[in-house]
Amino acid sequence: MHPYQLILKKRDGGELSPEEIEALLGAYLREEIADYQMSAFLMAVFFRGMSPRETAALTMAMVRSGETLDLEALGGVPVDKHSTGGVGDKTSLVLIPLVAAAGARVAKLSGRGLGHTGGTIDKLESIPGFRTDLSRERMLDQVRRIGCALAGQTADLVPADKRLYALRDVTATVESIPLIAASIMSKKIAGGARGIVLDVKTGSGAFMKTLEDARDLAEAMVAIGHEVGRRTVAVISDMDQPLGRTVGNAVEVEEAIATLQGRGPQDLTELCVALGSHMLVLAGSEASRDAAEERLRRALEDGLALERLRKMIAAQGGDVRVVDDPGLLPQARHVLPVAAARGGVVAGIDAEAIGLAAMSLGAGRARKEDRIDPAVGIRLERKVGEKVGAGEPLASVLAHDEARGAEAVRRVREAYRLARSAPTPRPLIHAVLGDAA
Amino acid sequence: MHPYQLILKKRDGGELSPEEIEALLGAYLREEIADYQMSAFLMAVFFRGMSPRETAALTMAMVRSGETLDLEALGGVPVDKHSTGGVGDKTSLVLIPLVAAAGARVAKLSGRGLGHTGGTIDKLESIPGFRTDLSRERMLDQVRRIGCALAGQTADLVPADKRLYALRDVTATVESIPLIAASIMSKKIAGGARGIVLDVKTGSGAFMKTLEDARDLAEAMVAIGHEVGRRTVAVISDMDQPLGRTVGNAVEVEEAIATLQGRGPQDLTELCVALGSHMLVLAGSEASRDAAEERLRRALEDGLALERLRKMIAAQGGDVRVVDDPGLLPQARHVLPVAAARGGVVAGIDAEAIGLAAMSLGAGRARKEDRIDPAVGIRLERKVGEKVGAGEPLASVLAHDEARGAEAVRRVREAYRLARSAPTPRPLIHAVLGDAA
Repeated sequence: MHPYQLILKKRDGGELSPEEIEALLGAYLREEIADYQMSAFLMAVFFRGMSPRETAALTMAMVRSGETLDLEALGGVPVDKHSTGGVGDKTSLVLIPLVAAAGARVAKLSGRGLGHTGGTIDKLESIPGFRTDLSRERMLDQVRRIGCALAGQTADLVPADKRLYALRDVTATVESIPLIAASIMSKKIAGGARGIVLDVKTGSGAFMKTLEDARDLAEAMVAIGHEVGRRTVAVISDMDQPLGRTVGNAVEVEEAIATLQGRGPQDLTELCVALGSHMLVLAGSEASRDAAEERLRRALEDGLALERLRKMIAAQGGDVRVVDDPGLLPQARHVLPVAAARGGVVAGIDAEAIGLAAMSLGAGRARKEDRIDPAVGIRLERKVGEKVGAGEPLASVLAHDEARGAEAVRRVREAYRLARSAPTPRPLIHAVLGDAA
Repeated sequence: MHPYQLILKKRDGGELSPEEIEALLGAYLREEIADYQMSAFLMAVFFRGMSPRETAALTMAMVRSGETLDLEALGGVPVDKHSTGGVGDKTSLVLIPLVAAAGARVAKLSGRGLGHTGGTIDKLESIPGFRTDLSRERMLDQVRRIGCALAGQTADLVPADKRLYALRDVTATVESIPLIAASIMSKKIAGGARGIVLDVKTGSGAFMKTLEDARDLAEAMVAIGHEVGRRTVAVISDMDQPLGRTVGNAVEVEEAIATLQGRGPQDLTELCVALGSHMLVLAGSEASRDAAEERLRRALEDGLALERLRKMIAAQGGDVRVVDDPGLLPQARHVLPVAAARGGVVAGIDAEAIGLAAMSLGAGRARKEDRIDPAVGIRLERKVGEKVGAGEPLASVLAHDEARGAEAVRRVREAYRLARSAPTPRPLIHAVLGDAA
């Protein structure tokens, strides 16, 4: 295997064989191929793309670079879910206990937030005592007992992804659909999933700003799933305004709890029911999506989903009392209103700007090494399509520091676009691809 | 200067400012930017190209990376010539003494051969005693005394080119027109030329196989010349069959001597007169190309050009007697005829195949570290358009080793294409671009 020949082949638009992809990645990980050859290859991939066969081969070569989780012993079809990331996206906090309550078994590995998007692990850690560094054995044991677990990714899972991402991050080769797709899918497959539900976000707060890009990414991931024998559904959901009414960490946990109590915001509830119904069908727990949706709504109403959250918090060492008394979650010192300068209808909320405002308060990270402040964040008092009078609150900023709070108030106000009449509503779900029932 | 931002800008089709190009290359040479970032940048350049302004900025940044030759003290406009490389291309051996005899002053730095193409320095070194490792002072002194010198490039001239080429060579980023153009032009400019004549080859034996690619490269180099204030002419000349009737080292010196005696092959003579006339006009020695051509033809006829070669050989320590007795040049042990299997007219000679056959005999290098055998090579007894009877010689292989010779005979025979009638002749000069008079 001559790395030069493989770079040349990709540069000139050829298709590498699965053996060539495997050899290239293997040699790179063994440090037999230099970073400068891999970065040239990745830049050629940026321009030339990869076929589904190439992308699947890369995905499986990445999976084989480290340890994998074997969930077969749990029985049934292990299902997993992934979101491409957004603002106010607390879906996993609701969805995992919800589908567990409805009969599926989910061992979900999640990540931390970076930039304008939050991370499930950061949010969970705002629950006092909650542990996310579960060992493989403890995680499997917990799923066996209560049906679900939500833990951080360990370093031995897909180490190739870490190596490649670090290189892509400094060579402007991150924004490549096949490389993004292989990165996501390799982690889901290494995590043991046989059925995968992908929440691909699109809009101002998503990485894929346009529906077209989101669809390309969704198609690339579904194609990988098919190539490697995983049932895969991709739901393209809206992220043009933040999801739900909270952005931060503790505030998002609070909203997730309310949603599991059946009194959450409509968009979040509907998205969780939609994603959950695909998961139940892939898991074989329900035969149809209609039946699955009904079961999920019942689990929200009868308290079984909330009960499952309680069990998960207890199993992972967290303070269960937060479920009934969210005041026990970290609280910000200041609550600063963002008043509307004039009256009107909210025509748009720039989700990325809101995410960055929350980050500047301390709710997110500009760099990987930054620390999160769990208490700070933003409450959206008005969402798109809602009326506001002059001087009435558009949002509230939860801050520890008054100066940073004032700056966030300014940013949040700028993120709101007001109009005289309501805009045409964007659908919550733009498209569903793959093995949808 | 953030290298990431510059890679991103190029990747997305933006134009870097001269300051950004200078900063990027400078930081790379100071090893503040890693090879993996530079190779990603170079691959982005492969796909996006570079504007004339960017290419000129890169060229001048490369020039500034090392020492430069100052030829101003010689008086007049210093001119130089560069060939993109071909098979049987002994043009410089004829051209440099020829234009010196006609009044120009030329301090030419040349390279060695690699792959199917030969190098002027290798050819000169087949003259017993001839030295090509001249110091700057000695070279200038020689040009002052006899009007010309032909020496090897020193390592302190454009060290950036060596660094970049080594990286491009292993990352499949060699074949980029702006990078090739900057590499060539930086060496000419660092060599002190104010007027530059470029011989851009096209055809089966050239790096640029198509006229379109040759024209793109010629345009890129002329544009650099204009951006940086060098008068530049690019002559696109034919390299679809070897130039002249010899391929090798000593045999090419012999043919160059014959050409300076006015009895050389027509294509070589005409190309030297054409290139030389542009050089004389750029040097200000002649006002028109017609006058320049006339003067050059006179120098060939009256022996002044040959006399200049004698002086150059003597000045550089070579055995001057080879001019009158080419038998003193290294001679191969075997002369193997390549007989035509059937009669016909030569319709084509694959120049690259002839170059590779000569290389396999030892006349060229497969790798940089290979040693040259000056005596071996190929004589073409028939060129395109000439008749041959069955069993008559197409060519002769000059070999030291019979087995390698027999293999070369087979290869040379395969490189000839015979037909019933003569093909439409290709022009010797396809186009002239730039500051042509």
